[in-house]
Amino acid sequence: MLDETAEGVFAIAVTPFLPNGAIDWESVDRMVEFYIAMGATGLTILGMMGEAGKLTAEESVALVKRVVARSTVPVVVGVSAPGFAAMKALATASMDLGAAGVMVAPSSNLRTDAQIITYYHSTAEVLGAAPFVLQDFPLVTNVVISTDVILKIVTDCPTCVMLKHEDWPGLEKISALRAASDNGARRISILCGNGGLYLLEEMLRGADGAMTGFAYPEMMAQVVSAYQSGDETRARDIFDAYLPMVRYEAQPGLGLAIRKHTLAQRGVIAHDTLRKPGAVLRETTKREVQLLAARQDERLQALEVR
Amino acid sequence: MLDETAEGVFAIAVTPFLPNGAIDWESVDRMVEFYIAMGATGLTILGMMGEAGKLTAEESVALVKRVVARSTVPVVVGVSAPGFAAMKALATASMDLGAAGVMVAPSSNLRTDAQIITYYHSTAEVLGAAPFVLQDFPLVTNVVISTDVILKIVTDCPTCVMLKHEDWPGLEKISALRAASDNGARRISILCGNGGLYLLEEMLRGADGAMTGFAYPEMMAQVVSAYQSGDETRARDIFDAYLPMVRYEAQPGLGLAIRKHTLAQRGVIAHDTLRKPGAVLRETTKREVQLLAARQDERLQALEVR
Amino acid sequence: MLDETAEGVFAIAVTPFLPNGAIDWESVDRMVEFYIAMGATGLTILGMMGEAGKLTAEESVALVKRVVARSTVPVVVGVSAPGFAAMKALATASMDLGAAGVMVAPSSNLRTDAQIITYYHSTAEVLGAAPFVLQDFPLVTNVVISTDVILKIVTDCPTCVMLKHEDWPGLEKISALRAASDNGARRISILCGNGGLYLLEEMLRGADGAMTGFAYPEMMAQVVSAYQSGDETRARDIFDAYLPMVRYEAQPGLGLAIRKHTLAQRGVIAHDTLRKPGAVLRETTKREVQLLAARQDERLQALEVR
Amino acid sequence: MLDETAEGVFAIAVTPFLPNGAIDWESVDRMVEFYIAMGATGLTILGMMGEAGKLTAEESVALVKRVVARSTVPVVVGVSAPGFAAMKALATASMDLGAAGVMVAPSSNLRTDAQIITYYHSTAEVLGAAPFVLQDFPLVTNVVISTDVILKIVTDCPTCVMLKHEDWPGLEKISALRAASDNGARRISILCGNGGLYLLEEMLRGADGAMTGFAYPEMMAQVVSAYQSGDETRARDIFDAYLPMVRYEAQPGLGLAIRKHTLAQRGVIAHDTLRKPGAVLRETTKREVQLLAARQDERLQALEVR
Repeated sequence: MLDETAEGVFAIAVTPFLPNGAIDWESVDRMVEFYIAMGATGLTILGMMGEAGKLTAEESVALVKRVVARSTVPVVVGVSAPGFAAMKALATASMDLGAAGVMVAPSSNLRTDAQIITYYHSTAEVLGAAPFVLQDFPLVTNVVISTDVILKIVTDCPTCVMLKHEDWPGLEKISALRAASDNGARRISILCGNGGLYLLEEMLRGADGAMTGFAYPEMMAQVVSAYQSGDETRARDIFDAYLPMVRYEAQPGLGLAIRKHTLAQRGVIAHDTLRKPGAVLRETTKREVQLLAARQDERLQALEVR
Repeated sequence: MLDETAEGVFAIAVTPFLPNGAIDWESVDRMVEFYIAMGATGLTILGMMGEAGKLTAEESVALVKRVVARSTVPVVVGVSAPGFAAMKALATASMDLGAAGVMVAPSSNLRTDAQIITYYHSTAEVLGAAPFVLQDFPLVTNVVISTDVILKIVTDCPTCVMLKHEDWPGLEKISALRAASDNGARRISILCGNGGLYLLEEMLRGADGAMTGFAYPEMMAQVVSAYQSGDETRARDIFDAYLPMVRYEAQPGLGLAIRKHTLAQRGVIAHDTLRKPGAVLRETTKREVQLLAARQDERLQALEVR
Repeated sequence: MLDETAEGVFAIAVTPFLPNGAIDWESVDRMVEFYIAMGATGLTILGMMGEAGKLTAEESVALVKRVVARSTVPVVVGVSAPGFAAMKALATASMDLGAAGVMVAPSSNLRTDAQIITYYHSTAEVLGAAPFVLQDFPLVTNVVISTDVILKIVTDCPTCVMLKHEDWPGLEKISALRAASDNGARRISILCGNGGLYLLEEMLRGADGAMTGFAYPEMMAQVVSAYQSGDETRARDIFDAYLPMVRYEAQPGLGLAIRKHTLAQRGVIAHDTLRKPGAVLRETTKREVQLLAARQDERLQALEVR
Repeated sequence: MLDETAEGVFAIAVTPFLPNGAIDWESVDRMVEFYIAMGATGLTILGMMGEAGKLTAEESVALVKRVVARSTVPVVVGVSAPGFAAMKALATASMDLGAAGVMVAPSSNLRTDAQIITYYHSTAEVLGAAPFVLQDFPLVTNVVISTDVILKIVTDCPTCVMLKHEDWPGLEKISALRAASDNGARRISILCGNGGLYLLEEMLRGADGAMTGFAYPEMMAQVVSAYQSGDETRARDIFDAYLPMVRYEAQPGLGLAIRKHTLAQRGVIAHDTLRKPGAVLRETTKREVQLLAARQDERLQALEVR
C-alpha cells in the first residue's frame, strides 16, 4: 500500500495502442519491464498522459489488471472522473486488483478554497481505505490549490499520502510544505511532474522524487539517486545533458506524441499511436527529436553515464 | 430514428435517486409517464441536468434501457465523454436498446473553428449511422460555435439532424441558421434550451420547439402549441404566467436542485436527492419556490389554462 | 461620502455616444436627470455597462466631472484597472471631483482565497480614504469570491462599505452575509445587480436595494419602495409586469445594446451608439423589444403604476 | 518604420522602477544601451513583461518618449488595451514620438475565428498607417489563433508586418506560415517569444529571430547570428549553455522577477523592483539563480563565447 514514505521515480506510463486503436497488450508488458529496468520505484497508470479519458471503463480496469500483474513495484491508478460514482467504481476495482493507491485531480469547475477542500473530503470518503495522491496540475485542471488548502486536506484526510506536484511555478510550494511539516504538519510524499523540467530544484526544496513520464526515465532515476547520495554536481551534469530533450518533450499536447515516438524508437512500445483526438508528428518534428537524441548521446558518453 | 423533422418538446429528464444515492427506478418510470402526459414529444436523458457525469458506465446503460422500454416517444441519449471510446460504447449500447438518437456537446478544450469542426467529423465517424444532436451550450462547455461552423458540420455530417440550441444570447443564431436553410443549406431541427427563458422569441425566430428541463414541461408544450396554431398572444400569456418560476429555476447549479424539488412536490419523483457534488436547498429557497408556485397557480387559473 | 447605510437604487449609467463615437455630453446631462427623476438614490458610472474599458483616461475623468457636476445624488465611479497605478489615478481624480466612492472588481487572474484577499488589501491601501464598493461578478470576472472571503475583506478594510452583489446564483450569499452581520460582523450595504432579475428575492434576503442598469430604473425604485413599505404583493406585481423585459435585456453582451436602444426610444439619450467592439441591434430584435414594451405598458396600466 | 524584413533580436524591455515604485529613468537609459550593446536589433517596450498594465497612461507615453530618444534601433510599443480608444491614443502618441511600430495582443474574450479576424480588422483601421505586430500568446491571452486566421489577417491588413510568435506548442505554426508564403501569401517577419525556450527549432522552421526578454539577450543574438551564418552546431552549443537558465526564467509570473533580479545583478538596472501585484524573490530562489549563473559561466568559458 502506498504511504507517505514513497520516493524515487514513479513513471507516468503511457497506454500503448495498436495502429487500429486497440490496446497493445504486449507493449504494455514490455513497457512495465522497461520502466522498472530504468530505475522506476513505482508506476502511475491512467494519468492524463495515459490517455485515461480515451478509454472505456472496461478497458481501464483491464489495463490495471495487466499492469499490476506484471509490475514488481507499486502501481498508482489515476481515477479522476466527472463524478464520484465512476471514481469509486474504478478505485474499488483497482485496489481489489492489487493497486497500491489511486490519484485524483480536482474537478475543473472548482474555484474557492472551500470548494476544493470539500471536494477532497468527499473524495476521501468515497475512496474509503484506499491511499490517494492529490494531483496539483493547474495548467491543465485550471484549479489553483494554495499551500494552505493542501495542508488542510493533509490534516483532514489521513489517506492523502502523496502530492503529485505539478504547479508551475511551484518551487515555493514545496518549500512551504516542507517548512510546515518541519513545524508539525504530517509529512507526505512529494513527487514532481512537469516532465522533469525543474527536477533538480525540486529535490533541493525537499521533494522525494519524480512522478512524470519523460521518455528517458533513467534521467530521473539517476538525478534523484545522485542527489540523494550527496553528489549534486553529478545530478546537475546528468540533468543538463538531458535538458534539451526534456524541454522539447514539454510542449503541451504535442509532448505525449513525442514521448510515444521516442518510446517506440527505443523499442519499448511497438507503435507510437495515440487515440483521437491526439497530435500526429510530422517528419520535421521527428528529425528534431533525432538531432536532440544524437547530441544527448554524445553528452552522456562524455559523462560516462552509460 | 431521430431526424430533421423533430419538433415539439423534448423534455430533459432528471435522473431520480433514492436518499442513499442509488437510482430510483420506480421514479424513473413515473417520470417518463409524467413528461409524456404533460405533452413531451420526446425525452432526452443523460444530459448535463441528468447528472450524467455522476453515473457509472453500467448505470448509464441501465437507465437508457429502463427509459426506452417505458417511453412511447423518441428517446435521445447524451453521450458526451472525455474520449471517443466511451462515447462510442454508450452510443452503441443506447442505439441497440432502441434510443432514437444521441447528443454530443463539444469537448471543453476546443477553441478554433477548425478544432470544433474536426471534433464533430470524428464524432460522426465514431457514431456511424446513429443520428446525433449537436449541443451548443457555451456557458457550460466554454466552447463558442459560430453559425458558420454549425453550417459546416451540418453540410459535412448528414447524421447531424438537430441543434440543441443553448447559446446565450442565441436568437440571432437561430435567424441566421434559418436564413441559411432558406438559401439551400440542409434544414435541421432546432430545439432550444436555457430552461425556456427565451422560448417565445426562439419560436418566432424559427425554432421547432424546446429541449429543456423546466419542472413544468406543460408550459413549453402549451407555448409551442399555441404558437404553432397561430395564437401568439395566448403563447405569450402562458409564457408570462410561468416566467417568474422559469427565471428562478434558471440559477446555474442551483437550478437542478430546484427542479428536482418541484418534481418531488408534484409527486413525479419520490425524492429530490442529487448525487454529490450537488446543491442542497435551504428552507428559504423552498419557501421562495412555494410563493412563486402559488402566484403561478393564480395566474394560470385566470388564464383558464388548467 | 458613500457609507454602509447606502440603499435604494444606484443606477448603472450608460455612456452616451454620438454616432461618430464621441461622448454625447448633452445626453449625459439628460441621462443624469432621468435616472434621478425615475427614483435613483445614486449613480454608478464607468462600470462594465458604461463601456469604461473603451474610454481613454482623459475621457473617463471628463465623464466623472460632468456627471458629478450635474448629479444631486451620490456618484460611484468604477475604477477597476489592469494595475494599481491607473486605478489610483482615476480614483484620486474622481474623489477630488466630488465622487462619493469608487467601485473595484477583482483582477481576472485571481484564483485562491488568499490572492483575492491580498488584492483587496492592496486596493484599500492604494485608495486611501476613498470608500469603495467590492464588485462580485463572477460571470464576467471569472473570479469566485466566497462569503468568508468577503467577510475577511470587510473586517480588514474599513473603507469597504458596499457589496455590488452580482454572483449567480447569489441569494444564499446575501443570507449568509446578513447572518454574519447579525452575529457581529460589520454590516455593509448590499446592492444587487444582474439587471434586476432576482431583485425581489434579493430584498427578502436582506439586500438594501439595486445597483444595476435596467432601462426602466423606475421598476427597481418602485419594487424596493413597495418592499420597504411592507407591501410585498405590490412589489411582486410590479416586478412581474417588467419581468419579460428584464429577462430580454439580461442577454449578455447584447443587453447593453438593448438598454441603449430603449433609453434612446424613451428620449433619454440621443443615440443608441456603442463603441466598438459592441453589438448592433437588428430589426428583428428591435421589434421584439417593441412587442415586449407594448405588453409591459398594458400590464402597468392594469396595475395603475403610472 | 517597422516592416516585413525585420529580423534579429527585438529585446522585450522591462520597465525599471525605483524601490518606491516610480519609474527609474536612469536605469531606463542604461537598459536601452545594454540591450543594443548585447546585439538587439530592436526594442519592444510596454509588453506584458514591461508591466504595461501597471502604468498610467501618462507614464506609458513618457516611457515611449525616453526610450525612443535614446535608442538607435527601432522601437516597438505594446498598445494592447481593453478598448480601441485607449489603444489609438497610445499608438498615435508613440508613432508621433518616433516609434517604429506597435504591438497588439487579442482581447481575451475573443473566441471564434470570425471574432478574432474582426478584432484585427478594427485594430488595423484604428491604427491607420502605423505598422503593427500581431502578438499570438494563447497561454496568457487565452485566445487561440489558427494559422488560417493569421493568414487572413495578413492578407486583409497590409499594415500587419510581423508576428510575435508565442504559441506553445508553436513550431508547426511557423512551418505552416512559411509554407504559405512560399505559395504566394505575403511573407511577414516572425520573431519568437517564450523566453527563447525553442529558439533554435524556431529558426530552423523559418523564424527571423527572437522577440523576448531573457536576461541574457546576447544568447539570442549569438544563436541567431550563428544560425544565419550557417553554423548550426555553434548555435546549439550556445543555446544549450544557457538553457538551464532559460528554463528557470520561464516560470510564469515568477519569471519577470527573476529577469529583473538578473538584470540588477548584471548592473543594467538599479533595482529589481516590480510594481504590485508582482512576485517577490525569496533567498532560496536567488541562490538557485546564482548557482545556475555560475555553471553557465563555466560552460561559456569552455565555448570561448566570451
